[in-house]
Amino acid sequence: MSDIDPTGAVAGWWATAVSRMEPGVIELRGRPVQELIGGTGLTSMIWLMLRGDLPADRQADLLEAALVAAVDHGPHAPSIAVARMAATCGVGLNSAVASAVNTLGDSHGGAGEQCVRLLDEILAQEATGTPLAAAAEQVIERGPRYVPGFGHRFHPRDPRRDPLLSLVEDAVRDGVVSGDHLRAGLAAEAYLAVKGTRPVPMNIDGATAIIYAELGFPAPLARGLFVLSRSIGILAHAWEETQQGRRNKGPIPPSVLPARLG
Amino acid sequence: MSDIDPTGAVAGWWATAVSRMEPGVIELRGRPVQELIGGTGLTSMIWLMLRGDLPADRQADLLEAALVAAVDHGPHAPSIAVARMAATCGVGLNSAVASAVNTLGDSHGGAGEQCVRLLDEILAQEATGTPLAAAAEQVIERGPRYVPGFGHRFHPRDPRRDPLLSLVEDAVRDGVVSGDHLRAGLAAEAYLAVKGTRPVPMNIDGATAIIYAELGFPAPLARGLFVLSRSIGILAHAWEETQQGRRNKGPIPPSVLPARLG
Amino acid sequence: MSDIDPTGAVAGWWATAVSRMEPGVIELRGRPVQELIGGTGLTSMIWLMLRGDLPADRQADLLEAALVAAVDHGPHAPSIAVARMAATCGVGLNSAVASAVNTLGDSHGGAGEQCVRLLDEILAQEATGTPLAAAAEQVIERGPRYVPGFGHRFHPRDPRRDPLLSLVEDAVRDGVVSGDHLRAGLAAEAYLAVKGTRPVPMNIDGATAIIYAELGFPAPLARGLFVLSRSIGILAHAWEETQQGRRNKGPIPPSVLPARLG
Amino acid sequence: MSDIDPTGAVAGWWATAVSRMEPGVIELRGRPVQELIGGTGLTSMIWLMLRGDLPADRQADLLEAALVAAVDHGPHAPSIAVARMAATCGVGLNSAVASAVNTLGDSHGGAGEQCVRLLDEILAQEATGTPLAAAAEQVIERGPRYVPGFGHRFHPRDPRRDPLLSLVEDAVRDGVVSGDHLRAGLAAEAYLAVKGTRPVPMNIDGATAIIYAELGFPAPLARGLFVLSRSIGILAHAWEETQQGRRNKGPIPPSVLPARLG
Repeated sequence: MSDIDPTGAVAGWWATAVSRMEPGVIELRGRPVQELIGGTGLTSMIWLMLRGDLPADRQADLLEAALVAAVDHGPHAPSIAVARMAATCGVGLNSAVASAVNTLGDSHGGAGEQCVRLLDEILAQEATGTPLAAAAEQVIERGPRYVPGFGHRFHPRDPRRDPLLSLVEDAVRDGVVSGDHLRAGLAAEAYLAVKGTRPVPMNIDGATAIIYAELGFPAPLARGLFVLSRSIGILAHAWEETQQGRRNKGPIPPSVLPARLG
Repeated sequence: MSDIDPTGAVAGWWATAVSRMEPGVIELRGRPVQELIGGTGLTSMIWLMLRGDLPADRQADLLEAALVAAVDHGPHAPSIAVARMAATCGVGLNSAVASAVNTLGDSHGGAGEQCVRLLDEILAQEATGTPLAAAAEQVIERGPRYVPGFGHRFHPRDPRRDPLLSLVEDAVRDGVVSGDHLRAGLAAEAYLAVKGTRPVPMNIDGATAIIYAELGFPAPLARGLFVLSRSIGILAHAWEETQQGRRNKGPIPPSVLPARLG
Repeated sequence: MSDIDPTGAVAGWWATAVSRMEPGVIELRGRPVQELIGGTGLTSMIWLMLRGDLPADRQADLLEAALVAAVDHGPHAPSIAVARMAATCGVGLNSAVASAVNTLGDSHGGAGEQCVRLLDEILAQEATGTPLAAAAEQVIERGPRYVPGFGHRFHPRDPRRDPLLSLVEDAVRDGVVSGDHLRAGLAAEAYLAVKGTRPVPMNIDGATAIIYAELGFPAPLARGLFVLSRSIGILAHAWEETQQGRRNKGPIPPSVLPARLG
Repeated sequence: MSDIDPTGAVAGWWATAVSRMEPGVIELRGRPVQELIGGTGLTSMIWLMLRGDLPADRQADLLEAALVAAVDHGPHAPSIAVARMAATCGVGLNSAVASAVNTLGDSHGGAGEQCVRLLDEILAQEATGTPLAAAAEQVIERGPRYVPGFGHRFHPRDPRRDPLLSLVEDAVRDGVVSGDHLRAGLAAEAYLAVKGTRPVPMNIDGATAIIYAELGFPAPLARGLFVLSRSIGILAHAWEETQQGRRNKGPIPPSVLPARLG
């Protein structure tokens, strides 16, 4: 409050528990920034900023594995293609990244968030007394055709599934996480394996959703964390493209353009 | 190449050294993703994706400190304010982050990039035989009024400067980095201290620019790395705002709106 | 199809009915661009591009009135504030506009789209034999608390309502549109007037939704058309802000910033 | 000013000459919105919002022709491709448009702005006494290799050039505009025709730059106006794409993806 904001209404409108500043002072979630610099890892910093406390080492390790796993899946994903095209159009790297991150919507970046909700629903159903396998079946059957977190257009079996789930199993064994969401995810996968004509194994969105949910992140942050992770690949691709010197790169090479377009 | 892309022109248009996929295989910079999951830290992953190789531990530590230091400076920065407002407008977290990252332009997110160029110019001038102090003076005097990387509107002395430079000094002492850009930055700071009516100490952009340049990142990636770092704060603020339930938050509280606007 | 795209798969992936190009030829919705330049108004062009045919003059006039009415509602709307802040951050006008347009999400730019759906539902209910007033009541009562298209935080009565509805009435009288969505909107407004403790008259989103729906635009294009309209105000504000020379404008003036933030 | 903003500092920070609101009142550039609705065309509204006054009919007609001419050049332009890909990723039309508009940077959307500067420089050079042809040569020779506003990758002669310049000539003849920028543009085109091995005729950016400059718009608004124009095509393509039902559309069709990517 001050003479020019006597009621504090303006300051209050922008109040936050995330950070606090005074001249010469920066606190992030109540911790002086100079105490964080040098001693705190980037993944722990993400946890701190989103949740207000620092993770235990094993929690940070598990989160870090999920973030590392999802950084990139190549320029055939629309987000990466957008980043590369935008980078040739005469904008800064920040704007190339922004155009790309903006495409991580419900279909492209939302599967993790949707999968957390699916796992939560399966566990809620189980909590009413339904056996887990039946709970998984019921929740999947009343949901959309594409089960978020399962199946992949390109990989028969996503190579990121096994190492991520293996880390979750270690964490369950050591009491770092409860394993409930892992159980729910495996039950869903088992149901999908017998349901259709071919298995639909868990993909990167499913495996990371299990990690995020096991660590206590709410569903919308599964998308938020994916944004942070994929931003790394987006930046790497935008940067590589700027070094190749193309201008106004379109989706297909000029040499392939037919004489008549459209 | 294939029957439907016989010359490989289409695949070539989207060729990349960043990542490679086959069914069941994902390689990031030539490394199978399953070898990276669990053993590689997020900061090392950023280095790998941008540069193609993994950093030594001490290099990763120094990069991590810079990334941690810059995550947030509160909602009075336009990027954070944009994130918070966008988050109330009925878009996903990805779009709230995108709108904010998009504002990290030449003025708001470009100071690190500009500071790397400034330090490079000072070192290039020194390499012609000019003493460092004179080189710093010459380069600053022919540059713009606001010297990128120095001075702060709010902090007389940026609390992130000392811990970051201290880590650089350690790294120089141990042979991790050369210390050239640190010397250039300190020479610039020394000149600015005697030039005006009050000292203009190095700020976060200057201190991180030194780290990025010492580690061999080219200037545009100083902005790129800042984008990754600040995205963490942007996400934390967007997320906090969504939990407060406002709709279509404007810049000033409705209670302060005058009866006549404009 | 060509030697390097023998199956035409690549060209087909990007096929469109919107535009067609050959060297020296540009056709928009089948019309040579040179026939459109000079003879076709901007509003008719919007109609043509979205729908494939040109509107009658009276249709274009009605659409134009809706587009004109919604161009701006001042910098206290988050989209405009975002545009003005972004414009001070060292990005091009295109990026300032993009950051702002991006905030026209479900809450901020989606009311028109939601209102078209509401009106469609009321009419569908009426078509089953329910009297219109009862249909409006039923549809509103099963919907969300905020009825999209009705009520305004700032205006007791939106000054854009009456002139827009007057134009719709003229168009109904002259057989330009059927008047069905107007009837549904007025029935909703009448129900809201008796339901609560004070009237909740139609706002700009409601009045333009009626126009868009009367003209045959599907609901998502109500948002799309609003984007085009509001982009004009967004650009005007971004441009005004760039001429004032601020750098990195935050939401509240530095003079009001308390010594302690957060 | 009010009890909670006693100095008016907060209101002043967001003061604008673009629009003014009181409860029940909306004024755009000083004109009550209800006076604009129905009587003012969309192009005149753009002029009003950007400049503060209404154009004469002939001025509006000329501006409208330029805006109509540039709405679209097909999905092989990165902006349109981005819009179409984004539209399949589960974001609203506003975000699809935003991702696309964001790519209209210096290379992709900035040629008109650069061309206005070029024409201004030629005229400034002429004003010092240099004959126009020599002024055009001098300005072009000291500029970049790609002369903004001239030449086209796809069209030997841009079909939008002649009808636009014809309208400018009419306007010059009738005293609507001075014709100075037209003269400068034709001088540049004439020099480029004799300079190289083949003619480099004016393209859409050059022809619209002449119109915008003749009408008195400053250079940055050439980009701003292009953003408004191209947004129409962007929206049309995004909308068409959403109706085709693809999810997460990449730049090349899955059928063309080689078994090994990258």
